[in-house]
Amino acid sequence: MEFVYMFGPIIALILVVYNFTAFLKKPEGTERMKDISLRIRKGADAFINHEYRTVAIYVVIIAVVLSFLTAWYVGIAFVFGAFMSSLAGYLGMKAATRANVRVSEAARSTKRIGPALKVAFQGGSVMGLSVGALALLGMNIVINLFKGQLSSDSLIIIDNHIGVNFIPFAMTLSGYSLGCSIVAMFDRVGGGVYTKAADMAADLVGKTELKLPEDDPRNPATIADNVGDNVGDVAGLGADLLESFVGAILSSIVLASYNYVLSGKYYETALKLIFYPIGFTTIGLLACSIAILFVVMRNLSDKPHQELNIALIISALLTGIGNFILTGYMLKSESNDALVNFGFRYGPYSAYFSAIAGIIAGILIGLLAEYYTSDHFSPTKKLSYKSLQGTGMVISGGLALGMRSTFIPSFVLFIAIVLADHFAGLYGVAMGAVGMLSFVATSVTIDSYGPIADNAGGISEMAELEPEVRHITDRLDMVGNTTAAIGKGFAIGSASLAALSLFASYIYSQTSPGEYVTSIQELLNLNIINARTLGGAILGAALPYLFSGILIEAVVKSASKMVDEIRRQVKEMPGILDGSQTPDYEKCITISADGALKEMVLPAMIAILTPLVSGFTFGVDFVGGLLVGTTLSGIMLALFTANAGGAWDNAKKHLEQGKIQGLAKGSEEHAALVVGDTVGDPLKDTVGPSLDILIKIMAVISLIFAPLFQKFSIF
Amino acid sequence: MEFVYMFGPIIALILVVYNFTAFLKKPEGTERMKDISLRIRKGADAFINHEYRTVAIYVVIIAVVLSFLTAWYVGIAFVFGAFMSSLAGYLGMKAATRANVRVSEAARSTKRIGPALKVAFQGGSVMGLSVGALALLGMNIVINLFKGQLSSDSLIIIDNHIGVNFIPFAMTLSGYSLGCSIVAMFDRVGGGVYTKAADMAADLVGKTELKLPEDDPRNPATIADNVGDNVGDVAGLGADLLESFVGAILSSIVLASYNYVLSGKYYETALKLIFYPIGFTTIGLLACSIAILFVVMRNLSDKPHQELNIALIISALLTGIGNFILTGYMLKSESNDALVNFGFRYGPYSAYFSAIAGIIAGILIGLLAEYYTSDHFSPTKKLSYKSLQGTGMVISGGLALGMRSTFIPSFVLFIAIVLADHFAGLYGVAMGAVGMLSFVATSVTIDSYGPIADNAGGISEMAELEPEVRHITDRLDMVGNTTAAIGKGFAIGSASLAALSLFASYIYSQTSPGEYVTSIQELLNLNIINARTLGGAILGAALPYLFSGILIEAVVKSASKMVDEIRRQVKEMPGILDGSQTPDYEKCITISADGALKEMVLPAMIAILTPLVSGFTFGVDFVGGLLVGTTLSGIMLALFTANAGGAWDNAKKHLEQGKIQGLAKGSEEHAALVVGDTVGDPLKDTVGPSLDILIKIMAVISLIFAPLFQKFSIF
Repeated sequence: MEFVYMFGPIIALILVVYNFTAFLKKPEGTERMKDISLRIRKGADAFINHEYRTVAIYVVIIAVVLSFLTAWYVGIAFVFGAFMSSLAGYLGMKAATRANVRVSEAARSTKRIGPALKVAFQGGSVMGLSVGALALLGMNIVINLFKGQLSSDSLIIIDNHIGVNFIPFAMTLSGYSLGCSIVAMFDRVGGGVYTKAADMAADLVGKTELKLPEDDPRNPATIADNVGDNVGDVAGLGADLLESFVGAILSSIVLASYNYVLSGKYYETALKLIFYPIGFTTIGLLACSIAILFVVMRNLSDKPHQELNIALIISALLTGIGNFILTGYMLKSESNDALVNFGFRYGPYSAYFSAIAGIIAGILIGLLAEYYTSDHFSPTKKLSYKSLQGTGMVISGGLALGMRSTFIPSFVLFIAIVLADHFAGLYGVAMGAVGMLSFVATSVTIDSYGPIADNAGGISEMAELEPEVRHITDRLDMVGNTTAAIGKGFAIGSASLAALSLFASYIYSQTSPGEYVTSIQELLNLNIINARTLGGAILGAALPYLFSGILIEAVVKSASKMVDEIRRQVKEMPGILDGSQTPDYEKCITISADGALKEMVLPAMIAILTPLVSGFTFGVDFVGGLLVGTTLSGIMLALFTANAGGAWDNAKKHLEQGKIQGLAKGSEEHAALVVGDTVGDPLKDTVGPSLDILIKIMAVISLIFAPLFQKFSIF
Repeated sequence: MEFVYMFGPIIALILVVYNFTAFLKKPEGTERMKDISLRIRKGADAFINHEYRTVAIYVVIIAVVLSFLTAWYVGIAFVFGAFMSSLAGYLGMKAATRANVRVSEAARSTKRIGPALKVAFQGGSVMGLSVGALALLGMNIVINLFKGQLSSDSLIIIDNHIGVNFIPFAMTLSGYSLGCSIVAMFDRVGGGVYTKAADMAADLVGKTELKLPEDDPRNPATIADNVGDNVGDVAGLGADLLESFVGAILSSIVLASYNYVLSGKYYETALKLIFYPIGFTTIGLLACSIAILFVVMRNLSDKPHQELNIALIISALLTGIGNFILTGYMLKSESNDALVNFGFRYGPYSAYFSAIAGIIAGILIGLLAEYYTSDHFSPTKKLSYKSLQGTGMVISGGLALGMRSTFIPSFVLFIAIVLADHFAGLYGVAMGAVGMLSFVATSVTIDSYGPIADNAGGISEMAELEPEVRHITDRLDMVGNTTAAIGKGFAIGSASLAALSLFASYIYSQTSPGEYVTSIQELLNLNIINARTLGGAILGAALPYLFSGILIEAVVKSASKMVDEIRRQVKEMPGILDGSQTPDYEKCITISADGALKEMVLPAMIAILTPLVSGFTFGVDFVGGLLVGTTLSGIMLALFTANAGGAWDNAKKHLEQGKIQGLAKGSEEHAALVVGDTVGDPLKDTVGPSLDILIKIMAVISLIFAPLFQKFSIF
C-alpha cells in the first residue's frame, strides 16, 4: 500500500520535467543578453558546485559518526537526505538561471506582462515542485526500505553495539531529516552571505559613491549581485523550506511512533498515523501540481499578483478538500479509544483540524509580515517619513518597528499551538506544521519566481534593453517583493512550529525505553525549574544572538573586501565608468563566493556542535533547556530582523516613488533611507532566514543524539 | 532579636545625613553657577513631584485591589514599599542636584581632582546608602509588624474572604516588594524617556545642525539634558537596584517559607533562613558604610578610578568576611537534616557559597560589559574604525557587536545558577542574587557619582568656567562612564538572578496548600511541554520586544517634539546663537517632562497588566510560560541593547580623541559615529534598564496573584 504514496512525487517530477523543457525551448534574446545570462549562470554554477563539495566533506564525516553511533542505515539515510536536498537546490537553481534571460526576452518580444510572467512562474515551479517532490520521494524511499520491518517489530527499541537504545524506524527518518538540515544550513548561510555581500558592496560603492543606478553594467559587482539572488533566494530558500517540510513530517511520524512504543497499544492506528502526514502532504503536492498546471496552461493576464494568488488559493483549497477526504478514508474506521490514545480529542478529524489551524496561522503570519513591511501600510510609510528627521531616526524607527512586529505573529503562533494541541495533542501540533507546509510546492514556486524576475530586470538593464522591458520586469519584481515578505513570514512560522514539534519529539525520545507505560503524559515533561534546564535555556537564548552577530560580521567582512575590489577596478580601469572598458565581473564573483564559502563554516559549526558538545557535557535536561531558549529567542530575532529589514527596504522605495514630499534619489532623506536599507539587507536576507534553520537543525540533532546524551554525558 | 537588624539601616541613614550635610556646607561658586544649578534643580524637582503624583494614583488603585483580593495589610505593605522606594529616589536626587554645582566649584577653587571627587562621591553616597538603608529598614518594619505572628502560626496558609489561600507573611512581603517595583517601573521608564529625549534632541539639532559643542548654554535643550541625567541616571537607577535588592531578599525568604510550609518540618531552621538574607544584606550595608566612610574621611588622590575601586573592594571584602562570620553564627547549630530539607548540600555554609558565586558572577558580568563597550578593548575600537566605511557599516557593526556580547555573560549566568543551585538548591539561587546585591549601597554610590560628575561638567561649560575646570570634571565623567557600563552589566545580571528566583517562588506559590507533602521537588515543576506553557513562553518572549519597540518610539516622539521646539527658538530668537539672548530652557524642560509622563504609562501598564490579564484568562501554566519567555528574551535584549549602545557611544569618543587616523569632529566619519550614538542612546539608557524591571515586575506580580489565577482563571 505504501507504494501508492510514490505516485504523488512522481507526478510532480513529471511536471518539473515538462515545465523545465517548456521554457527552455523559448528564445534567449540578443547576444548581449545571452552573454550576461551565461555569466550569471557560470557564477552560480561555480558557487553551488564549490559549496556542495564543501558540504560533501561534512556530510561524509557526519555520516561516519552517525553510522558508528547508531547504525549504518541511519548514516545512509542521512547521506540520502543530503543528496535529495542538494538535488532540489541544484535543479531549482539550474532552472532559475536559465529562466531569467527568457523572462527578459519574453518581455522584450511581446511587450506584455503575461508571457514574461509565465516563464518566470515556470522557472520558479521547478524549484517549488522539486522541493515537494524530492523531499517526499526520499522519505517514501526511506520508509519503503524499512517496509519489511514496518511490522510491529520495526517499532520496537533496539540496543546497538555501543549500548544505546533507539527505535530504528524513527532514527532512520531522523537521519534523513538531518541530511536535509545540514544542506539547508550551508545553503542558507552560504547563500545569504554571498548574496548580501555582493548586494551591500554594489550599493555602498556603486550607488552611493559612483552614483550608478541599480544593475548598471558599469558596476563590477552587478553580476555577482545577480548570482547572489539565485544562490541565496532560490537555492537557499528552497533548501530551507524543504527542511521545514521534512522536519514537520518527521516530527509527526516520530510522535506517533513513540506514542505507540510507549503505550504498546493500537499498532494498526499507529501505522495509519505514521502514514497520515505522508498522505496529507502527498495530497498537498498533487493539489499544487494541479494549481501550477492550471496557471501554466492558460494565457496569463497582465496582473501578476492575481495570477499568483490564483495558484495559491487553488493549492490551499484543493489541499484542504483533498485531505478532508483522505482523513475520512484513512482514519474513520479507527476506534475512538485508539485515537484517544494518540491524543485525538474530536474523533478521526482531530488532526485534520490541527492542520487547518496551522494553515490559517501560516497565512496570517505571512500577511502580518506584509503588513509590517509593505509601504501600502502605515508602519513602513511612517518609517519612510522618519527620513525627514535624519538617519538616526530612520534607524531607531526601523528597530522599533521590527521589535513591535514580533508580538502579533507570536500571538497567532500561541493560538495555533493551543488549538492544534487541543484538537490532537502534540501530534496535532506537529500536524499544524505539516498543514502549514502542505502546499510548499506552490509557496516555493512563488518565492522563487521573485528572484527570477529580479534577475530578468538586471539582465534587461545590463543588456540595455528598452525602458519598456525594464518596466515590465519591474512590475514582476515588485509583486515578487510582496510574495517574498509573505514567504518569509511563512517560513518563520512553519519553522517555529516544526522546531517546537521536533522539540516535543526530543522529549519523547528521552523516555526510558523497553518498558510499556500507562500514562504518556507523565513522560512528556521537561521541568524548567531545574537549574540545569534553566541554565541551558539562558545559554540557548543567547545562541541566536551570537549566531546573528557572527553572520552580520561575515557579510560585512565579505562586503568590505568587495568594496575594496570595486574601488580598485574603477581606479585602475578608468574606462569602466564611461563604458569603454568591461569591468572584471568574475573577480567580484570570486570574492563573494570565497567569502561565503569561508564564512559559512563557523555559523554552521555552531549550530551543529552546540547541542552535541553541551549534550555530552551537561546531559539531556540541559539540552532541553537549550532548545527552549534557542527556539524562543530565535523566533523573535527572526521576526525582528526580517521585518525591520523588509520595512527599511520598502521605506526607501516609498521615497524613490516620490511619495515623501516629492523627494527623490540623491536627496539627503534618500541617503538616510539607503543607510537603513544597507543595515537591513543582511538582517532580512542572511540573519532572519538562517535563524529558521538554526532552531530546526538544533532540534533535529538533539532528537537524534538524545539517547546518547542520556547514556554518555559527563556531568 | 529581629530588632537587631534595624541597626544596620539606621547606621547607614546616619551616614546619609552626615554626608548630605557635609557637602551642603561647601560653597556653590559664582552667581552664574548658582543660577544654572537652580534651574537644573527646579526642573528635576518639578518632574519628580509630577511623576510621583502620577505614580501615587496607580499605587492607590493597586493598593485597593490588593487589599480586596488578599488582605488589608498586604495593601499597606505595598504602599509602604512604594513610599520607601520613592523616598530613596527623592533623597538621592535632591542630593545629586545639590552636589553637581559644588563639584564644579571644588574643581574651580582647588584646581584638583581629589576634592571635586569627594563631593561627587558624597553626593552619590546619599543615593547609594538610601537605597540600601531604606529598602532594608522597610523590610524590617514589615517583618516586625508581623513579628507577633512569626511563630509557626504565621507560616500557615490562610483562606481569605474571597476564598483564596495564601501565606500572610510571604504575601505581605511580596506586597512590599511590589510597591518598590511599581515605583521602579515608573522611575526607570519615565526617567529613561526624559533623559534620552532631551539628549537626542540636543544632539540632533544642537550638535549636528547648529554645530554647538556639548552643554553649550546657547542650546535650549541643554538644561533639560542635565535634568535628565538626574531623573534617569540617579533616581531611575536607584529605584531599579532597590527593587532588585528587595526582590532578591524576598525570593529567598519566600522560598524558605514555602519550603517550611510544604514540608511542615524544621520551623526553627526556616526562621533562621528567613532572617539569613536580611542578616546578609545588613552586613553588606554596614560594610558599604565603612567603605564609604573610609573614602569620605581621607584626602582623596587625583586618581578617581583608584579611589572608587578602593570603595568597591573594601565593601566586597568586608561583606564576604562579615557574612562568613554571620553564617557560622546563625546556621552552625542547625542539624544537617534540617539544612538538607532546605536544599543545603554542603552544611551550614552552603548558601554562603551560593552567594559568593553570585558575587563573582556579578563582577564578571560587569567587567564583560566594560570589555564590550570600552574603547580600551578591541570590540569598540574595531567599531570605531568601521566609520571609515560609512554609516551603514557603523550601524551593522554595532548591532553585530551587541548581539555577540550576549553570549559570554549568559554563560557566566548559567554557571552561576548551576553552582548556586548545586550548593543550596533554589534557595541558593536566590542567595546568589542576594550576594550580587549585598553591597548595593556602594555600587549605587559609584553609579550615581557618574551623572553628578556629568552635571558638574555641564555647569562648568554653561557657566563658562576656565577650560581647566572642565578638564577636571571630564576626567571625573570619563571614569563615571566606565563605572556606568559595569553598573549596567551588574544591574542586568542581578535582575536576571532576582527574576529567576522570583520565578521559582512563583512555581512554589502555586502548590496546593494546607497539606504537607513529603517531596518538595515534585512540586517544583513547570512542564514546558504543555501547549499552554509553550504558548505562554512564545508570547512572553515577544513581550520584551514589544515593550522595547514602544519605548524607542516614545523617546523618538518626545525627541522630535523637542527638535521642533529648538528649531523654533533659534529661528524666533536669533540672538540665541550669538549669546545675546537666553534661550527658553524651561520650555524644553516642560516638553521632556510632559513627554516622559505621558509615554511612561503605556509600557508600565503592559508590564503590570500582561501577567494579570493573561493569568486570569489562561491560568497559571500560561503565566509560568510567560515568565520563562519574558525572562529569557528580556535578559538577551537588555544585554544586546546596553552593550550596542555603550559601544557606539565610546566608539564616537574614540574618534573624538583623534585615535582614528587623526580624524576629528566635523568629519564624515565622525558624523557616522554620531548616528550610531544617537541610535544607541535610547537603547542603552531607556530600553536596556527598563527591561531589567520588566522581567522583575512581571515575576513579582505573578507571584502575588498566582493563587488567584489558580482559582479564578477563565479557560
